[in-house]
Amino acid sequence: MTPLRVGLLGLGVVGGGTWSILERNREEIARRAGRDIVVTRAAVRAQDLERVRQKTAGRVQLCTDPMEVVQAEDVDVVAELMGGKEPARTLVLRALELGKPVVTANKALLAVHGNEIFEVARRNEVMVGFEAAVAGGIPIIKVLREGLTANRIQWLAGIINGTSNFILTQMRDQGMGFSEALSQAQALGYAEADPTFDVEGVDAAHKLSLLAAMAFGIPVQFERAHVEGISSLTAEDICYAEEFGYRIKLLGIAKRTLRGIELRVHPTLISERCLIAKVDGVMNAVLVKGDAVGATLYYGAGAGAEPTGSAVVADLVDIARMGQVAPGHRVPYLAFQPDQVRDEVVLPVAEIETAYYLRLRATDRPGVLADITRILALQKISIEAMLQKEPRAGEARVDVIMLTHVTREQAIDTAINQIEALDSIAAPVVRLRLESLSS
Amino acid sequence: MTPLRVGLLGLGVVGGGTWSILERNREEIARRAGRDIVVTRAAVRAQDLERVRQKTAGRVQLCTDPMEVVQAEDVDVVAELMGGKEPARTLVLRALELGKPVVTANKALLAVHGNEIFEVARRNEVMVGFEAAVAGGIPIIKVLREGLTANRIQWLAGIINGTSNFILTQMRDQGMGFSEALSQAQALGYAEADPTFDVEGVDAAHKLSLLAAMAFGIPVQFERAHVEGISSLTAEDICYAEEFGYRIKLLGIAKRTLRGIELRVHPTLISERCLIAKVDGVMNAVLVKGDAVGATLYYGAGAGAEPTGSAVVADLVDIARMGQVAPGHRVPYLAFQPDQVRDEVVLPVAEIETAYYLRLRATDRPGVLADITRILALQKISIEAMLQKEPRAGEARVDVIMLTHVTREQAIDTAINQIEALDSIAAPVVRLRLESLSS
Repeated sequence: MTPLRVGLLGLGVVGGGTWSILERNREEIARRAGRDIVVTRAAVRAQDLERVRQKTAGRVQLCTDPMEVVQAEDVDVVAELMGGKEPARTLVLRALELGKPVVTANKALLAVHGNEIFEVARRNEVMVGFEAAVAGGIPIIKVLREGLTANRIQWLAGIINGTSNFILTQMRDQGMGFSEALSQAQALGYAEADPTFDVEGVDAAHKLSLLAAMAFGIPVQFERAHVEGISSLTAEDICYAEEFGYRIKLLGIAKRTLRGIELRVHPTLISERCLIAKVDGVMNAVLVKGDAVGATLYYGAGAGAEPTGSAVVADLVDIARMGQVAPGHRVPYLAFQPDQVRDEVVLPVAEIETAYYLRLRATDRPGVLADITRILALQKISIEAMLQKEPRAGEARVDVIMLTHVTREQAIDTAINQIEALDSIAAPVVRLRLESLSS
Repeated sequence: MTPLRVGLLGLGVVGGGTWSILERNREEIARRAGRDIVVTRAAVRAQDLERVRQKTAGRVQLCTDPMEVVQAEDVDVVAELMGGKEPARTLVLRALELGKPVVTANKALLAVHGNEIFEVARRNEVMVGFEAAVAGGIPIIKVLREGLTANRIQWLAGIINGTSNFILTQMRDQGMGFSEALSQAQALGYAEADPTFDVEGVDAAHKLSLLAAMAFGIPVQFERAHVEGISSLTAEDICYAEEFGYRIKLLGIAKRTLRGIELRVHPTLISERCLIAKVDGVMNAVLVKGDAVGATLYYGAGAGAEPTGSAVVADLVDIARMGQVAPGHRVPYLAFQPDQVRDEVVLPVAEIETAYYLRLRATDRPGVLADITRILALQKISIEAMLQKEPRAGEARVDVIMLTHVTREQAIDTAINQIEALDSIAAPVVRLRLESLSS
């Protein structure tokens, strides 16, 4: 068969990894795909032209205009690896309208414009691969689109942002504060100069909205996700959580309930006995609970040139194998057939149900605990565990830490407001969510 | 589209799970597959006919002759869920010759007759799904055939037999001996009356030979695997391993080396810091190392009605989606295109290279350690760690435990022969393999 000719938009970290893999493993990949996969053209930034020319040793035709690559006659598939929403969206849509399949690692693009992109792809009967957009080299998209198709997915929970997981691991292992751990992540190249998307949970929410769409057969709806990051997390709370046998991880959680779908990213206490609690550093992992298969876990590198390139190339192999078959015989973009995607209710955060970790700074005097527990009881919140620390030397205030049973977030909000209004409470209550990940 | 009509050969544990899932999740599955998947016929044992008739409430046409199901006009796909080599082989081959795709959970059949079955399937241009044959509901076949196609797979290591993992977990957690743990596994239904295949590593080797074929593009060659089980493992060695920070797991290991492929199943020491060391009870996990993606791990239930049924149904969905496309556009049976499968050297066990755990029972007198270390040095085996226990009350002999660096198995065999010939050595040397799973 004739080779599959790929045009790369971007030849930076992910594009470079993709190119290296296709060069190094060309023969092994062709033995699987049934045909060669070759990069014929790439668009790069003007300032990178010389560096890339040396790396690709004249074997790739380079230019600085990505639209030129999209439209080139010798490009069968477009791999969009530049990131950002524009011009990526325009380029992807143009490729699809030309009938060219697209592979992309761009989770921000798909989280915001995915529904439009998949609709245009469907109309033009072409494939869109986005394995690289979530959890790097872990084939989690394939798992959800094809591996677990027998299941009604009940929930999934993922460590899907390596930067924040690295920071949390450092905070725990080294006792660092958030800022110090962030600086270290930046020094090591794990965090960008502006780390907002990573540490505030936005990147994880982009990915979560894609996972949830495939798990539940709903549209991609990033805008409805509840998003909290890790920047206000303290080493103190990480320590207290440990005392109860919990680790704190930034999880993306999508859960199907009788009242609607929960879609949320936030720091989460999970039992140290859970396998996913042991996923440290920049590694990623996704736990998926299906009604038939039970809990399954997928673990690997969530970022980096070659792990992400591995996912891009897997999508290219899928296209090499199946790009020519009739659309009805292909795997649907979001796991469910396009006409079977349904817009289900996504619950506002006040409506979610989970357990909670509360830390209160209270005056050390009789009656305080009685006041607090009365407020919680009125909201029907029951306490699973409690820890009261001795006051530090010279202080009249103590930390009281409570773990609650599962309750409605609304009830916790109401209780916290009332607790904070007590004279004996000296500071805002720290509230973290806790998940058992077991049912 | 018209429904995909499935004929079940066997409606026991896995067949029952498959049927239950297709009934319960019919709508959700059709939303993904693009068409209904219905069981039209099933062959069951005469003594089960009444029980199954009640379970299926008249919605499935039952018989006791599986060939009748294979040949029925209203059966598009045959799901072979009866196990064993015959008549399963004859039935599967007949289905393929009739141009009917086959789904099977039968690892023993594929490990021994896989090459023949895949060749007949290829000639007849039909799909064969066997996701259920390895690691139950974990979609590891899909991961290897499609998810990691960019990679040169360097090695894989799996806990792929739940029975033996349950026994090892009980031995460690409860300090039980092998026999006691086996009896418990049998009482709980995790082990069969004749547990040989599970505890002697045969079942794991069946699965390993399939995983290795897909990882390396080689034929299925169960007969060349080196197989050791867990029946001679003692609680004592599990304890000593713990003292060094290791767990003992029955691993199936396939490794590509410059000299050939290693294919082996045996109890293995792995660092307790490895995620896979924490996979306990009947759970399965497979660690796959690719040159691009790095190490990835896949975890879930390795057996049971619905986890295994989940894999059967996923294969049925693949067939519903892609059964009609031209063979060249489908995923190859063993990940590599049939004409690209190559027969590479599988190393005899004497040629493998790994690290070792040795336990010696030695007379407690001067010079013994010098003799032992001299023998090891002559074989160029270097010692990574050593532990000598105090003699037990009233005993003149002590346990000496050594961990070696990586060496050739041949060298260890020679050294053990020489050590056992020493007057000061009172019992056969216990030798276990140790893997770092890191490179």
